[in-house]
Amino acid sequence: MIDDRSLDTLFRNARTHNGWQPRPVSDDQLRAIYDLMKWGPTSANSSPARIVFVRTREGKERLRPALSAGNTEKTMSAPVTAIVAYDTRFYEHLPRLFPHNQAAPSWFSGPQNKAVAETTAFRNGSLQGAYLIIAARTLGLDVGAMSGFDNAKVDEAFFPDRRFRSNFLCNIGYGDPTKLFDRSPRLSFEEACALA
Amino acid sequence: MIDDRSLDTLFRNARTHNGWQPRPVSDDQLRAIYDLMKWGPTSANSSPARIVFVRTREGKERLRPALSAGNTEKTMSAPVTAIVAYDTRFYEHLPRLFPHNQAAPSWFSGPQNKAVAETTAFRNGSLQGAYLIIAARTLGLDVGAMSGFDNAKVDEAFFPDRRFRSNFLCNIGYGDPTKLFDRSPRLSFEEACALA
Repeated sequence: MIDDRSLDTLFRNARTHNGWQPRPVSDDQLRAIYDLMKWGPTSANSSPARIVFVRTREGKERLRPALSAGNTEKTMSAPVTAIVAYDTRFYEHLPRLFPHNQAAPSWFSGPQNKAVAETTAFRNGSLQGAYLIIAARTLGLDVGAMSGFDNAKVDEAFFPDRRFRSNFLCNIGYGDPTKLFDRSPRLSFEEACALA
Repeated sequence: MIDDRSLDTLFRNARTHNGWQPRPVSDDQLRAIYDLMKWGPTSANSSPARIVFVRTREGKERLRPALSAGNTEKTMSAPVTAIVAYDTRFYEHLPRLFPHNQAAPSWFSGPQNKAVAETTAFRNGSLQGAYLIIAARTLGLDVGAMSGFDNAKVDEAFFPDRRFRSNFLCNIGYGDPTKLFDRSPRLSFEEACALA
């Protein structure tokens, strides 16, 4: 069981941040995020997420043309922007990642499995994106994830061989609480869940 | 910052469970899971995940025909199996969920936005599935998520009007550590991440 204050940090009081304090995030902190998120479960341990942590001026300028107007300033000013992507050929790593069954790559490889490979990469790469968000919060960092950007432009700038595909972006840093929006409501249990 | 023991509980020592102790999970615990996971961020607060918590014999029997052979016993014996699904018409709730911009439903509604609506529901419904996994662990529960089932059969049995679509299943309970597989390796930071 996790203590009540930690539940506030991870979920109840955690917010999507739009402004950032001028306080850096170190590469060691980014490694610590990955060293937690990597343990989150994925289908057949497929681990399809690939992350580019953009934290230099040059890297941010490569990202800029892909950002929507409303996301540009907060992303350019964030200490780090993670490009959460996935490997379309994640299954090539399965002989090592899923040693229980050496036939696992054949579930996903080849043109006849293209749809299931794509669905698996997108679903599990998204799960891992959520693990990244939570892992950053466990380390005292704030995040602001977004889909408001041009995926094709990001892919062209960062993944020119087209093997990796961008999923979403996630700013990482120490949030400026004065830049928060009011918190939006959530669906009730009765609206979102059913018991059977 | 979250303490080191909690990081073990959430990520480092958490495992995908295949066997379950004969110890029930209450409906109040399921509500507590939802009341944490609902706070996890989604694009435009779209909150597309819909969950059916299957915990009766009758419910499990409706699920059984959809399960792959390798997932049947552990799922039938789990105290609860969550069907993590998403609402294909999630955008109908946006006037309330995203009050900042009353035009938000128009970003996703209509045949011309079908692809972006589907991608948004699947991506964000998957993020919320990961929040469910983490939220259950914060409450001292174990989980075992799986994609090895027939989505069409689950949808036919639980979502006959086709508005909701199953994403993945997640068993919830108190795991039996004697039924764990050996832990599989993960990709290194250098393999999965890049700095830019």
